[in-house]
Amino acid sequence: MDFSLNEDQELMVEGYRQLMESRNWEDYFRECDTNSEYPIEWVEAICELGFDRILLPEEHDGFGLDWTALTAAYEELGRMGGPTYVLYQLPGWSTVLREGTEEQKEKILSFVGTGQQMLNYAMTEPGAGSSWDEMATTYTRRDGKVYLNGHKTFQTSAMHAPYMIVMARNADDMSVYSEWFVDMSKAGITKEPLKKLGLKMDSCAELYFDDVELEESDLFGTEGNAFMRGVQDFDLERFLVALTNYGTAYMAFEDAAKYANQRVQGGEAIGRTQLIQLKFAEMKVALVNMRNMLYEIAWKSGNGTLGRGDCSMAKYYCSHASSEVVDHALQVLAGIGVTGEHRVQRAYRDLRVDRVSGGTDEVMILATGRAALRDYR
Amino acid sequence: MDFSLNEDQELMVEGYRQLMESRNWEDYFRECDTNSEYPIEWVEAICELGFDRILLPEEHDGFGLDWTALTAAYEELGRMGGPTYVLYQLPGWSTVLREGTEEQKEKILSFVGTGQQMLNYAMTEPGAGSSWDEMATTYTRRDGKVYLNGHKTFQTSAMHAPYMIVMARNADDMSVYSEWFVDMSKAGITKEPLKKLGLKMDSCAELYFDDVELEESDLFGTEGNAFMRGVQDFDLERFLVALTNYGTAYMAFEDAAKYANQRVQGGEAIGRTQLIQLKFAEMKVALVNMRNMLYEIAWKSGNGTLGRGDCSMAKYYCSHASSEVVDHALQVLAGIGVTGEHRVQRAYRDLRVDRVSGGTDEVMILATGRAALRDYR
Amino acid sequence: MDFSLNEDQELMVEGYRQLMESRNWEDYFRECDTNSEYPIEWVEAICELGFDRILLPEEHDGFGLDWTALTAAYEELGRMGGPTYVLYQLPGWSTVLREGTEEQKEKILSFVGTGQQMLNYAMTEPGAGSSWDEMATTYTRRDGKVYLNGHKTFQTSAMHAPYMIVMARNADDMSVYSEWFVDMSKAGITKEPLKKLGLKMDSCAELYFDDVELEESDLFGTEGNAFMRGVQDFDLERFLVALTNYGTAYMAFEDAAKYANQRVQGGEAIGRTQLIQLKFAEMKVALVNMRNMLYEIAWKSGNGTLGRGDCSMAKYYCSHASSEVVDHALQVLAGIGVTGEHRVQRAYRDLRVDRVSGGTDEVMILATGRAALRDYR
Amino acid sequence: MDFSLNEDQELMVEGYRQLMESRNWEDYFRECDTNSEYPIEWVEAICELGFDRILLPEEHDGFGLDWTALTAAYEELGRMGGPTYVLYQLPGWSTVLREGTEEQKEKILSFVGTGQQMLNYAMTEPGAGSSWDEMATTYTRRDGKVYLNGHKTFQTSAMHAPYMIVMARNADDMSVYSEWFVDMSKAGITKEPLKKLGLKMDSCAELYFDDVELEESDLFGTEGNAFMRGVQDFDLERFLVALTNYGTAYMAFEDAAKYANQRVQGGEAIGRTQLIQLKFAEMKVALVNMRNMLYEIAWKSGNGTLGRGDCSMAKYYCSHASSEVVDHALQVLAGIGVTGEHRVQRAYRDLRVDRVSGGTDEVMILATGRAALRDYR
Repeated sequence: MDFSLNEDQELMVEGYRQLMESRNWEDYFRECDTNSEYPIEWVEAICELGFDRILLPEEHDGFGLDWTALTAAYEELGRMGGPTYVLYQLPGWSTVLREGTEEQKEKILSFVGTGQQMLNYAMTEPGAGSSWDEMATTYTRRDGKVYLNGHKTFQTSAMHAPYMIVMARNADDMSVYSEWFVDMSKAGITKEPLKKLGLKMDSCAELYFDDVELEESDLFGTEGNAFMRGVQDFDLERFLVALTNYGTAYMAFEDAAKYANQRVQGGEAIGRTQLIQLKFAEMKVALVNMRNMLYEIAWKSGNGTLGRGDCSMAKYYCSHASSEVVDHALQVLAGIGVTGEHRVQRAYRDLRVDRVSGGTDEVMILATGRAALRDYR
Repeated sequence: MDFSLNEDQELMVEGYRQLMESRNWEDYFRECDTNSEYPIEWVEAICELGFDRILLPEEHDGFGLDWTALTAAYEELGRMGGPTYVLYQLPGWSTVLREGTEEQKEKILSFVGTGQQMLNYAMTEPGAGSSWDEMATTYTRRDGKVYLNGHKTFQTSAMHAPYMIVMARNADDMSVYSEWFVDMSKAGITKEPLKKLGLKMDSCAELYFDDVELEESDLFGTEGNAFMRGVQDFDLERFLVALTNYGTAYMAFEDAAKYANQRVQGGEAIGRTQLIQLKFAEMKVALVNMRNMLYEIAWKSGNGTLGRGDCSMAKYYCSHASSEVVDHALQVLAGIGVTGEHRVQRAYRDLRVDRVSGGTDEVMILATGRAALRDYR
Repeated sequence: MDFSLNEDQELMVEGYRQLMESRNWEDYFRECDTNSEYPIEWVEAICELGFDRILLPEEHDGFGLDWTALTAAYEELGRMGGPTYVLYQLPGWSTVLREGTEEQKEKILSFVGTGQQMLNYAMTEPGAGSSWDEMATTYTRRDGKVYLNGHKTFQTSAMHAPYMIVMARNADDMSVYSEWFVDMSKAGITKEPLKKLGLKMDSCAELYFDDVELEESDLFGTEGNAFMRGVQDFDLERFLVALTNYGTAYMAFEDAAKYANQRVQGGEAIGRTQLIQLKFAEMKVALVNMRNMLYEIAWKSGNGTLGRGDCSMAKYYCSHASSEVVDHALQVLAGIGVTGEHRVQRAYRDLRVDRVSGGTDEVMILATGRAALRDYR
Repeated sequence: MDFSLNEDQELMVEGYRQLMESRNWEDYFRECDTNSEYPIEWVEAICELGFDRILLPEEHDGFGLDWTALTAAYEELGRMGGPTYVLYQLPGWSTVLREGTEEQKEKILSFVGTGQQMLNYAMTEPGAGSSWDEMATTYTRRDGKVYLNGHKTFQTSAMHAPYMIVMARNADDMSVYSEWFVDMSKAGITKEPLKKLGLKMDSCAELYFDDVELEESDLFGTEGNAFMRGVQDFDLERFLVALTNYGTAYMAFEDAAKYANQRVQGGEAIGRTQLIQLKFAEMKVALVNMRNMLYEIAWKSGNGTLGRGDCSMAKYYCSHASSEVVDHALQVLAGIGVTGEHRVQRAYRDLRVDRVSGGTDEVMILATGRAALRDYR
């Protein structure tokens, strides 16, 4: 057993730490959050350090590293206050590289190193939640073209990403679900921004497709394979949410710990009272557990032994454990936590959204529980 | 035993229900929340129905009712979505009537029926939290006048309330704590608004007093008695927070229940799945417990048998139980709960502040636990 | 609203209190628990005070009182350490009075005032849990007689109760479920005692019926009506479990409170430390909530407004809340709680069984959640 | 990072697995538990495989392995149902080797390979709990001998261990705490067995020392150093409790999983229902967290980077998490879990004692919280 990062990983972490300490990012993040703006300056800066190359294969000019390196990067960036939830597009190259046409790959790979938002996957619809049966978006072939019609909701990044991969059913055979690589500047597309409780540095939108004209070459992956494609990539998606949650909790814990040691009330630091120590015991346990769970999953992924329920479990556990940590941290910070614009209150709002987006708690619970039971059949 | 409201109480409740149904208040509340504005239209409307007269003695043209009537009013207003947290000044006449000079009483009673913000009590300081020893605000007698100097923080309503009752220490004898009835339009007062995670329809401010000139007649209550005065009025203050929390939870529960019955996913209403039913079981328990606890305390107050820890217990339990309810409701509402501007996400932010303001959780826990133990000495 | 007992109820409670203080019952209870014996001396003593007459109609020489009086009796007996779980047969006259033949009623009513175990209802089978479809016990009509065959498990009181009302399916039409009033001294009946984690003062047994000969007159209630009969009486059954749980928790709380005030460690009573005060805050909340929930349900029952999920909710909440209280109490008592034969450790074992027997937690959760949702359809 | 055991560790685990499968140990354990007897046959068998040599240095004919190997052994033995709590004496050689005289070491090392109980450390007294100030046991020098007087309570293994290391104060200078290596067959020693809620395969006793005559050579360690000696060895003591808790939970989880997959109710395996899947999700999370926390601590211990709060955290977390797992498992097993003599109900009783013995929850919480805060001073 070995619970330590290797030298290369430590060096990478050190680089991110120096970047985070190099300016007052928090002022910038607060401004982005208030204005619901993507923190492009920060994403550019970490991409300069190669953040988006971590999982990118070497043949595409990436580092070709594993989930362990990714975990270490998220951990340090989150701990230092970075809104890592905006980064989810950057480690996810594998989907496009596996499924995309040469043209699609080229389009997406051109973003490497830029920190720009590029694409997301549009599945959820107003009547459908995480379910598939009620999906109403369709594509129809007509005169050698393909026409997309429908309405997607809760689409993260959709206000600004230049491409969306949109799932739709074949209007001529509704049992066929396919995905289309859609240039979002096309005619017939309407975007309506949605307000959010948290995660405000990334947009969220309703998308309306009204006879949007596509080419056959815009098909993404194999026709009829949309369901399988999605499931295959759920693991990374869920893992990234869990990484973000953990980093956020780490930041809140450290803010609270420093405050509890300094803040004097009734003549002694509040950190010397039992009720506050209890909170730190609970926070410490949660952080240790999240950290180990995430690194173990990263290691399993690298070893080819990732279990079916592992990433769902990580999302379920980390979203809850991080919420608990942030709640405790807020309580320690008390007045200064809930007033002003303290970043821990931002964390409080952000984390709550994560228990819904990327698959609800309930979906994660059932996936985790079923996987646990499956081992004993 | 009797767990029902009497006919008069039912009639009053019915009046509030009709008012709440008489227009789309939610749009108004959302706007007030977004703009951090006091919902004066709504407070005026409920004061027309006599809300601020519930606890006001008949000799002052009030209804002279008890906490049970007050509880019933808060319950219904909260359930129907009213931001009852802004109302805390309206049942609290007893302090001014007990402690105030004739002139002070007259000033305050002139607000009856108007719904206007009138006053609050300024105690908390940056270095002092809920503690007293570190208080640094002082008053100094000089040439027949009294000069107030200091800095108060986290002062609810302080941007707009015309009067504040400010606690300060006698600069010549720091063991003497007194309160001063301060006209907030006086020279030497600076107000700085504070942003907040929630409870945004009421202001929160830092107050700076720089040699503010007062008269001896501005003394509020008995010199040196500030500590005792405060403790005496804690019970009502804490009880009102608990009432607000309960009503908010009731609203969230009903929103979620209606949604769970209608929202179809995978072919059946989500309310038919076990994990959702579990949430409703937990919510139901929490609501029943809050309701009974609050009405029992109201009844004890009327009976003269209110226990020392009762109101602290109510604040502690209700702030937690309501947070749990609202968290469950958000999870049921899922996407529509955390995006857009659903009132349940507002509730989520509001309730979190209440576990800090009006006395932290920790203060409530210790008061409750000590009172429980005291009975067995 | 009125949260107080009336004078008659207070007098009754006072009677039970005096009885409980009249001798060292705890030694007797401990002995009964160790030897798995029914505490007949205690049950006789409380029946002398009329415990089994509380709900018995006046026409049968009972007091004809309501659930509120019953709640008050259970509360005081439980608080003073009485193993009230053994009493469940004594308030349940209504089933036999409603469904029984004259002969059956006479048999059962002959037990009034004796404190003896008389009957229980046998439904659960090894392959069936709380489910009905898998029930394998049958009755067959042959030559003017009825023959009962099957195997029931987890039958509370079944080692000593002279009668059991056994649910079985008509072998000639398995869709017909009926109940039979069985004299347990008949040929063909085998009883095998089951050990238990707790609740040891009442027996638990497996019952084997091998061609047990019954008369037509032994039919209990209406043929084919067993399911409806059972459901009708679930409310009281569940309510009684909840009452027992609450009383047990009350006892544990008081034991712990007295100890925490006396036990000195490091120079001060442990009750003066924050972590212990936290436990008492939690315990106090749980006790207040259980008490109010139970009395409210009792009041609703008397008013004819009992809701469909109310008693399930009470069993669910009280079994959990009481477990939490007892767990805290054990932690306060520490070494003396987990060694020796302290009654709080008995409570710890007893309560755990109650989350399974009389309907599992899971059944209660679903019944509670569904009832909550039904109100908003 | 590497989360896997090496080949040697895997081989060792395989050996224990085979031993556990080689006979029906459960019948034996049940019998030992019922009769409060030490399971000597089992301990002998695992010592034949070298269990007690794991941490024993090679120079004393041990394996000289680290905590990781120990963790792997406890994990497998616990998972297979072994009552690992009785083993705590076998990894603890370091104390005697560090502090003991040659004669004392010889006495203790003579037990290697036998599986016999040998010694324990007696600190706790009736008036003192985990506190030291109130300790009343003393030693007095008289005529070249040393006389021990006092009363120790809650002494694990004390009925049968041939030696006890007894902490006492110098009667002539009560500020001096020392330990004495006491042969328990000496005159003047009275042992009184204590009943227990769980952990019944090991004894617990009150010990009375009435002028027990000792030699100067019976001093254990350095005079006046008792406090420091104890603290130094707390880490291993707490870690062992955590290991035991984890293994017990693992066993309960597997029993429950197998049952949930087989047990059919209402036509489907109960493992297919959401509320049961939720329990397995929670159990899985708890097991993963405990496992990682324990192996990480083992690894840190081997690396010399063990943190001050680490082992306290492990005891705190694992005792709670394992209790939660066992509670869920009992609920899954339902009737068969709480009746009969299912080993999961034994686990339920055993684990509850562990939240008190070896240092209470409260001591662990404060140690964990303080260590977490210390890092940010």
